[in-house]
Amino acid sequence: MVNEEQVRTALGQVFVPTAEQSIINLNLVRKITIAEDKITVTLAATGLADEVQNFVAAGVKSALQQFKNSAVQVEFVAVKPQELNQIDNIIAVMSGKGGVGKSLVTALLAIALKRQGKNVGILDADITGASIPRMFGITTRPFGSETGLLPVVSQSGIEVMSMNLLLPQEESAVIWRAPLLSKAIGQFWTDVVWGKLDYLLIDLPPGTADAPLTVMQTIPITGIIIVSTPQGLVEMIVKKAVDMAHKMEKPILGIVENMSYFYVPELNKKYELFGESKGESLALAAQAPQLGQLPIDPELARLCDHGDIEHYSGEAVAALGKSLSTILNTKK
Amino acid sequence: MVNEEQVRTALGQVFVPTAEQSIINLNLVRKITIAEDKITVTLAATGLADEVQNFVAAGVKSALQQFKNSAVQVEFVAVKPQELNQIDNIIAVMSGKGGVGKSLVTALLAIALKRQGKNVGILDADITGASIPRMFGITTRPFGSETGLLPVVSQSGIEVMSMNLLLPQEESAVIWRAPLLSKAIGQFWTDVVWGKLDYLLIDLPPGTADAPLTVMQTIPITGIIIVSTPQGLVEMIVKKAVDMAHKMEKPILGIVENMSYFYVPELNKKYELFGESKGESLALAAQAPQLGQLPIDPELARLCDHGDIEHYSGEAVAALGKSLSTILNTKK
Repeated sequence: MVNEEQVRTALGQVFVPTAEQSIINLNLVRKITIAEDKITVTLAATGLADEVQNFVAAGVKSALQQFKNSAVQVEFVAVKPQELNQIDNIIAVMSGKGGVGKSLVTALLAIALKRQGKNVGILDADITGASIPRMFGITTRPFGSETGLLPVVSQSGIEVMSMNLLLPQEESAVIWRAPLLSKAIGQFWTDVVWGKLDYLLIDLPPGTADAPLTVMQTIPITGIIIVSTPQGLVEMIVKKAVDMAHKMEKPILGIVENMSYFYVPELNKKYELFGESKGESLALAAQAPQLGQLPIDPELARLCDHGDIEHYSGEAVAALGKSLSTILNTKK
Repeated sequence: MVNEEQVRTALGQVFVPTAEQSIINLNLVRKITIAEDKITVTLAATGLADEVQNFVAAGVKSALQQFKNSAVQVEFVAVKPQELNQIDNIIAVMSGKGGVGKSLVTALLAIALKRQGKNVGILDADITGASIPRMFGITTRPFGSETGLLPVVSQSGIEVMSMNLLLPQEESAVIWRAPLLSKAIGQFWTDVVWGKLDYLLIDLPPGTADAPLTVMQTIPITGIIIVSTPQGLVEMIVKKAVDMAHKMEKPILGIVENMSYFYVPELNKKYELFGESKGESLALAAQAPQLGQLPIDPELARLCDHGDIEHYSGEAVAALGKSLSTILNTKK
């Protein structure tokens, strides 16, 4: 008789077309019952409109046809999106200061981890200044149903949810007072079918007010990555974020310094445009290691503008991912 | 007999020690009554503790001693700070995106206008990420009384009010939800004795949520200056700010592009680190002129870090101030 493992492997080939992901990745498979002449697969209907449920049910039947002599029954049950989320590491990328490259670091970390073969998602918590979709060239709107919202998937398979995907135009202003903003961030956590992920990265907006507060209070984050630049003025404000993390008793996993220098190949010279690195002082204040330094790279800016950040080949990406994995492993 | 103009001129020499400014600039002189043998000066007591009132009263008497044959009487009356504020132009500096240099542009504009001989103040509305005091090297706490708060004055005489001046340490996080933040911004308007100013510049935090909303709804701003950088991603988010200004029906006075290029003197070459200028496209969207471009200048970053921005001699400063004056004059 066929066993559950074989069924599960076969179900890995069944895709939810509106999520471009398998029902296994989305963690929709709730129960597999194998009787003598019948296999019953119970799926969460979360985020699936009726016609999508029909499509998925047909997919399940087709995938299990290989197990002859067994009738296949597909049942759908109601499950809250949050109950489907099975996420190993939730990492908030924070800065306190705007424009230092939180979104860039979030994106590059996600890409690095994806290249390591991990399942990765990005929750873009910067509701009024969402940057992630543009960097990844994502313009499709998320699908979903009354029961939940499905994340959109990037070219390389990173799950993304962002306010910009829900706006009529990416340039539309979200003129909301903070309770609504906090609600939106909360919903990106409670109403989105993230499914099974090794990493969920949260791109926080600047400041130490509502958004980071909501994230730290409502989402069970594993730790925080702090992004800064070499400018002393920036360091001062970033230390406010460090202060907040300490006050909220959330571990800081590491520091990333962005815009560290600009390299002019003709002169083989590094220009420290925003001053000397403050990484050490910040690491000391944060009681956390430096994860890496990123240069100012016009090529990276160009790729971000064109939605092609996943094509970036700079060595900084792999290095960042490696540092983060090492840190998380030593924490365990 | 002495006339009011002479008395007023003499009162211009009477300083409020806790504000480093004259009672004329602070607009504290409410009434001057000249009788045959007596001059009565009625002053607002706003923001002046008892001992400061005594000091100021003595100053008034001493300054008016020159008008012999006249006894001098000084009376204090209660006036709300806002009633003392007599401000010709209130300009909000906005971006939508963090880290593009709103605070830098605010500071340089203030310096440029001050160098033109104007009375200038800066209201730092970025409560959680206040940068203005650091740039100007201001560390003194503002004085005041139960009736009002006096702005602190920079080396060159620019009035400044910022949350960082009220914090125990500049690196302390302000972990407030938005209603409190909005309240703080509101108080910087209603409870601060700005007095007579030609220009009050408001440095807004990033985003299009509570802070800009509060400013646009409660402060009678003359217009908005939009700050951006050449990156397309930034332009997209800055356009959200433009969208908000239009929706709130506030005039956009002009666009400033920051970090336009980095000039390497050894090669006599300009590097467009964040891509080609998007100034024109943004000006078109904002239906407003370009006020100027600022390069990335390590010297400027250094001066900001050391609190010496007022020593910056780059030509960009004068140019910015000139553009702004021209725009405002043509609007009138």
